[in-house]
Amino acid sequence: MITFINRFHVTGATEEFEAAFDATSAFFADRPGFLNHRLLQHVDEPHLYVNIADWKDEESFRAALAHPEFAAHRSRLRTLSSSDPNLYVPLLERVAR
Amino acid sequence: MITFINRFHVTGATEEFEAAFDATSAFFADRPGFLNHRLLQHVDEPHLYVNIADWKDEESFRAALAHPEFAAHRSRLRTLSSSDPNLYVPLLERVAR
Repeated sequence: MITFINRFHVTGATEEFEAAFDATSAFFADRPGFLNHRLLQHVDEPHLYVNIADWKDEESFRAALAHPEFAAHRSRLRTLSSSDPNLYVPLLERVAR
Repeated sequence: MITFINRFHVTGATEEFEAAFDATSAFFADRPGFLNHRLLQHVDEPHLYVNIADWKDEESFRAALAHPEFAAHRSRLRTLSSSDPNLYVPLLERVAR
């Protein structure tokens, strides 16, 4: 499993960003290898968001980004925000007893 | 639920940071309101880590930080890394069909 984490700084209207992100999320959910994602909003700075997405492996994630339909999602999000994308591997996990 | 996300830039040995973080993780797992956490390591830059921790609410998270035993964990991690802590609320989630 790999985890893609993208921090967004929304420069447009947050409602528009959230609607655009929802459409992007639906697109990713249909791609092979997608496991789950969650979009979070900063408690103190509501124009800051972070998306955390788990994928089966880097190959399936890259294939989703290369899908012809992704370009329109990316360019819509780019008109509304800047982002800081990073890819991680899981190392340690604990769940409440 | 609230989510605490902390990005770490490890300046010391990564093995030492991972051991110190494991001890801190065990401390948090015993606090009321802790739900789960995961520590991830950057794919391309192994000195970069991110911790994602879910808590029942901000009060229980703040109480854990104010616990007398936390100070030693914090100062140990601070000798090994710098960090960028942020608090978020969940907004949107999708799981693979």
